[in-house]
Amino acid sequence: MGTKKTVSVLGLGRMGGALARALVDKGYEVTVWNRSEDKPTPPNTTRVSTPEEAFKSDVVITCLSTYEAQQPLLTNDIKTLVNLTSGTPEQARNTAQWAESNGVEYVDGVIMAVPQQIGTPQARILFSGNENHYVLDAFGEPVHVGEDAGLAALYDLALLGLMWAAFGGYLQAVALMGSAGIAPERFTPMAVSWLNEMTTLLPEMGEETQSRQYETEVSALDINVAGLRMLTEAGREQGLDTTLPQALHDLFERAQRNGHGAHSIASVIEEIRK
Amino acid sequence: MGTKKTVSVLGLGRMGGALARALVDKGYEVTVWNRSEDKPTPPNTTRVSTPEEAFKSDVVITCLSTYEAQQPLLTNDIKTLVNLTSGTPEQARNTAQWAESNGVEYVDGVIMAVPQQIGTPQARILFSGNENHYVLDAFGEPVHVGEDAGLAALYDLALLGLMWAAFGGYLQAVALMGSAGIAPERFTPMAVSWLNEMTTLLPEMGEETQSRQYETEVSALDINVAGLRMLTEAGREQGLDTTLPQALHDLFERAQRNGHGAHSIASVIEEIRK
Ligand SMILES: NC(=O)c1ccc[n+]([C@@H]2O[C@H](COP(=O)([O-])OP(=O)(O)OC[C@H]3O[C@@H](n4cnc5c(N)ncnc54)[C@H](OP(=O)(O)O)[C@@H]3O)[C@@H](O)[C@H]2O)c1
Ligand SMILES: NC(=O)c1ccc[n+]([C@@H]2O[C@H](COP(=O)([O-])OP(=O)(O)OC[C@H]3O[C@@H](n4cnc5c(N)ncnc54)[C@H](OP(=O)(O)O)[C@@H]3O)[C@@H](O)[C@H]2O)c1
Repeated sequence: MGTKKTVSVLGLGRMGGALARALVDKGYEVTVWNRSEDKPTPPNTTRVSTPEEAFKSDVVITCLSTYEAQQPLLTNDIKTLVNLTSGTPEQARNTAQWAESNGVEYVDGVIMAVPQQIGTPQARILFSGNENHYVLDAFGEPVHVGEDAGLAALYDLALLGLMWAAFGGYLQAVALMGSAGIAPERFTPMAVSWLNEMTTLLPEMGEETQSRQYETEVSALDINVAGLRMLTEAGREQGLDTTLPQALHDLFERAQRNGHGAHSIASVIEEIRK
Repeated sequence: MGTKKTVSVLGLGRMGGALARALVDKGYEVTVWNRSEDKPTPPNTTRVSTPEEAFKSDVVITCLSTYEAQQPLLTNDIKTLVNLTSGTPEQARNTAQWAESNGVEYVDGVIMAVPQQIGTPQARILFSGNENHYVLDAFGEPVHVGEDAGLAALYDLALLGLMWAAFGGYLQAVALMGSAGIAPERFTPMAVSWLNEMTTLLPEMGEETQSRQYETEVSALDINVAGLRMLTEAGREQGLDTTLPQALHDLFERAQRNGHGAHSIASVIEEIRK
């Protein structure tokens, strides 16, 4: 007892607030700082009015909107910096370099969870570079993804990209169904079970992108391009924005034009990799 | 015995072939036709060389690439037409009308499954208009989605749109990870569990699109637009095609510009509905 590290959290937004509460729950002595005063102070934390005061803790966690927002705040008074602000691999690597030349211990992590999951086993925290995860286990399951400090950020962007695409596709689908008077509560259970079913096809699709063998007994790009054209037209007829289906159509059609019409959907990666 | 309907399948592509095999498995007397001769004849079916010969069966199933391909083949010699070719709601309604004025019984169905799932309970067949599902239960679980003959096609496009978006997002993610030397077999298990986790958020997102209440404790559009910008930039830096992340960025950013920056991602539907 008495040896537990002191921890500061910079940023009391949706995620920063959840991180501070989880640390308190796990018994840490927690100091918090937020730029503006309107965000509430999480119970049993000490609020300070400058980042410098927060730097006295053993570990400083940053969780701001962007690197651009946090970069001006960082000084070499920090002992250990655990960065949980989302950014590019490049930004993570630069911060790792800055930390190294300034004698600051550093680990870059990304939170693959929503604030409501923080502190539960559902929350996965990916981190890279430094293999010490410091206090990350207070938030969920820490998973080290590699030596390169930029790797966690790369996983973050890739996984979020998958999420944004799926969410965008879902919202487009809800809008299309809505144009025929079908409410989301009627459509969504079908969308959920369908998406769960389709997700089981990803491992095979991944193998195809690796072997670059796109012969298929499942479904040829040709009929999927035809379908994307119909989806785009149906959306347009209903007066919907068609940015997303049009973009998917254009991407898939380019792969078709480049000789992949009889190949599987996985062959579209040839167009993305270029 | 002896009273089972005779069934014809027009089109022996990936899906038509699977349908014919499932009908044979279920004990139907099956006649098949395909435009070209190179597709193999499914075991225990009778192959005919003109559509007209196939029209003698009690039920005629069509499963060709597109409506454009099948329309010229249809005549009023058909007794019952079960259409399983994918198309727009408009095309399904027109075919229903054509069938009605020509004394042809008609049902429009869509197959929410891959050929390998046909004949298993995983295969869901949505149909609309006519409430009689004829032989559709030979292929999977038939679900009647409404009176309007075009509704099954609408569900089809909406659900496929969700799938194309998710598959596109996955391939983009695999390409990005590949640029850092991470193989799909390493990335995909994480992508699968992440997507499964994110899919559980769809019902709440659907409710938000209905109530149009977008206040959020989860994640604001602002940080997601910032993320999409980083994803697009990271892709560009790696020399990847960025059609998909760019389109998502542009769509989400328009919602942000229209006052939804502090709202949840669900608010993007306001931009799609326009
Ligand atoms: N929410 C999620 O579901 C989620 C999930 C995984 C990862 N993340 C990541 O966690 C980070 C924070 O997200 P969030 O949801 O907590 O965002 P949020 O609720 O919008 O909060 C943003 C925080 O950043 C601060 N900030 C913004 N600009 C600043 C500046 N120039 N100087 C100082 N502070 C500034 C804000 O301070 P003020 O109060 O003064 O505005 C606030 O504390 C982001 O990188 C995000 O990608 C979020
Ligand atoms: N595969 C799937 O996973 C899946 C899932 C659900 C729904 N579907 C739907 O099922 C339908 C068929 O898909 P599929 O995967 O079986 O496609 P496919 O393997 O590409 O086969 C296409 C079929 O259409 C025929 N065809 C094309 N143009 C024609 C024309 N002008 N006249 C006569 N026949 C023509 C082809 O005949 P030839 O042999 O002479 O070229 C072939 O039999 C599509 O509407 C698709 O959207 C497919």
